[in-house]
Amino acid sequence: MRGGVWTGGEAMTYCVGLLLNAGMVLLSDTRTNAGLDNISVYKKMFTFEQPGERIIVIMTAGSLSVTQTTIARLHDAIDNPEAEAESVLAAPTMLRVAEIVGNTLSCVARDVAVKLGSMSQNASATMIVAGQRMGGGMRMFLVYPEGNFIESTADTPFLQIGEHKYGKPILDRVVSMETSLSDAQKAVLLSMDSTMRSNLSVGMPLDLCVVKEGEMSAVTRRIEADDDVFHRMSADWSNALRDAFTDIEI
Amino acid sequence: MRGGVWTGGEAMTYCVGLLLNAGMVLLSDTRTNAGLDNISVYKKMFTFEQPGERIIVIMTAGSLSVTQTTIARLHDAIDNPEAEAESVLAAPTMLRVAEIVGNTLSCVARDVAVKLGSMSQNASATMIVAGQRMGGGMRMFLVYPEGNFIESTADTPFLQIGEHKYGKPILDRVVSMETSLSDAQKAVLLSMDSTMRSNLSVGMPLDLCVVKEGEMSAVTRRIEADDDVFHRMSADWSNALRDAFTDIEI
Repeated sequence: MRGGVWTGGEAMTYCVGLLLNAGMVLLSDTRTNAGLDNISVYKKMFTFEQPGERIIVIMTAGSLSVTQTTIARLHDAIDNPEAEAESVLAAPTMLRVAEIVGNTLSCVARDVAVKLGSMSQNASATMIVAGQRMGGGMRMFLVYPEGNFIESTADTPFLQIGEHKYGKPILDRVVSMETSLSDAQKAVLLSMDSTMRSNLSVGMPLDLCVVKEGEMSAVTRRIEADDDVFHRMSADWSNALRDAFTDIEI
Repeated sequence: MRGGVWTGGEAMTYCVGLLLNAGMVLLSDTRTNAGLDNISVYKKMFTFEQPGERIIVIMTAGSLSVTQTTIARLHDAIDNPEAEAESVLAAPTMLRVAEIVGNTLSCVARDVAVKLGSMSQNASATMIVAGQRMGGGMRMFLVYPEGNFIESTADTPFLQIGEHKYGKPILDRVVSMETSLSDAQKAVLLSMDSTMRSNLSVGMPLDLCVVKEGEMSAVTRRIEADDDVFHRMSADWSNALRDAFTDIEI
């Protein structure tokens, strides 16, 4: 936003995923805009599930036309097994799932960029792809607009997309592979809370997803703007930070 | 750094200034690079002082060639009162000081951009200009690369340049116009601490400057990498945050 330059849809999003020994915890906001005067709620978290067999969770940041079309094409490939496109539910590994998502994403972005011509710099998106299939371990990838990706590791057990900086300090301080799923939910919610306080364009409601290791299923929950637990936690955290600040000696 | 793209010198900097009822507190890091394999210490905080009459503090982020030349030209104008360039020490108001700095900055950036040709996107810088002259109030400005600027207000009593997002949540939570100069120093140091933890390219030593309201003089202090007080404060803050996190109930 420096000098009034609006940096496109991606700044209107914050998604974070944690890959821990106990499982995976993912959180996304839902605010999307098409210009500052057209702000809406759009889901940015999508689950592809064969309970007990395979779970895939995808979170998206960036151009809504690119992310919607990418997700639609992934669904098409699942619904039409005869078609040429490869289904993420049939892919032999999570690595292959990340490749399919990356290829689909970069193809869609290219198609949209051609249509948009000179405005093509806005036609991109980034995604977090997390999942586990029976017989394999949990894996989590950050897929770049060009389709390449990086993977979450023990050294960096979390991935973020969109407006990621405000919410990173707390993750750096409290998250490790050993973090419990309960603490992990706390961590991502407080990370989101810091982000929403510093950037008004990231907003409620939130989508929270917990995937326990080895269960190949997801428990998702929408946290609405009037969620009591979230607001109490946010207020408690504010008070605790202020108290901690007061107690520090210089 | 997404996809390996290095975003230029500005990301290697964090400077923050607070304008409070009691005075002004400014903090900058000192790390500069010319390529990842050439990292050095360069001062990013500059004071122009006529004790009891006028104090001006400038902090810089961005291309080192642009910021050094801009500061050099400001000094030249002070040293050569016969020259055409206007001296910041002779300017009638702090607003005029901000204009002089902005004009000098945009001129230098244009000159450097012409020399660099197609690489001109890197030849820019941003500055924080803070000060007070006898008979006037304290004022603090963020000067953009193009020379225009915004001013710190009671609603937003702090300005940041460079890698500003990691260190903003704590400022949002604890800083107001009523904050004491002692708490203000704590706040900027902890804000810097969060930034250095999340971005290794922002680094020690630090330059801290305190300007008391109405005194028209600055007390500056360099905080070296082995500063005991800073490290104790950083460790205390980490522990306090972890304890606070543990105590929050979900």
